[in-house]
Amino acid sequence: MIPSKINFSEKFSMLSDDYSVRIVAKMNDYEIKIVRFKGEFVWHSHPDTDETFIILEGTLLMHFRDKLVELKSGEMIVIPKGVEHKPASREGYKAILIEPEGVPNTGDAKSEMTINKIEWI
Amino acid sequence: MIPSKINFSEKFSMLSDDYSVRIVAKMNDYEIKIVRFKGEFVWHSHPDTDETFIILEGTLLMHFRDKLVELKSGEMIVIPKGVEHKPASREGYKAILIEPEGVPNTGDAKSEMTINKIEWI
Repeated sequence: MIPSKINFSEKFSMLSDDYSVRIVAKMNDYEIKIVRFKGEFVWHSHPDTDETFIILEGTLLMHFRDKLVELKSGEMIVIPKGVEHKPASREGYKAILIEPEGVPNTGDAKSEMTINKIEWI
Repeated sequence: MIPSKINFSEKFSMLSDDYSVRIVAKMNDYEIKIVRFKGEFVWHSHPDTDETFIILEGTLLMHFRDKLVELKSGEMIVIPKGVEHKPASREGYKAILIEPEGVPNTGDAKSEMTINKIEWI
């Protein structure tokens, strides 16, 4: 079966919270997600996997313990596994997130932001 | 080490051929590539892996044996493993391509478009 194409604007139009993350597709055992976020996320790392952010809108300030990387639309970064990071955004950002299925959104950190099961959209 | 961010426009500005594909990042054992293409590609499939296209510019007509999917900027599709497809574009397109490392660009098809080793940029 050929899956239908995915239109990111259509998917994002269904999400309005300051923080939303949803699965839009699977590629092998990886999930392709969309995320919108405004505010300060929690410091965390993913001990078992790298994680890719591709920015579609807005500005993401990716904090590392010894570096700050500002990401805008048309830019991406791969967070290496085990590296502590804290996403933050004053104006808000929208991004594509790619990582293996089942990776917890807050990695090794437990927080009120932890989502137990990320839904499809 | 924290890798630097990747800016797609900067990377594409170094490529001008009708068909160029380069690796820009690795995520675990996956490669994240950029591709620009104008014309008719060859029919092929990837017997061992799915393949993700995220369109950044232009229009990609993805031909399947029984379906045609038109993809524009802000849209994506996952080609399931083993499914024959033929990318085509009259005006040209630019996209992000995600698949495991070492996947041949023309899959199971040998063609003059086959690239033996895809380079980094």
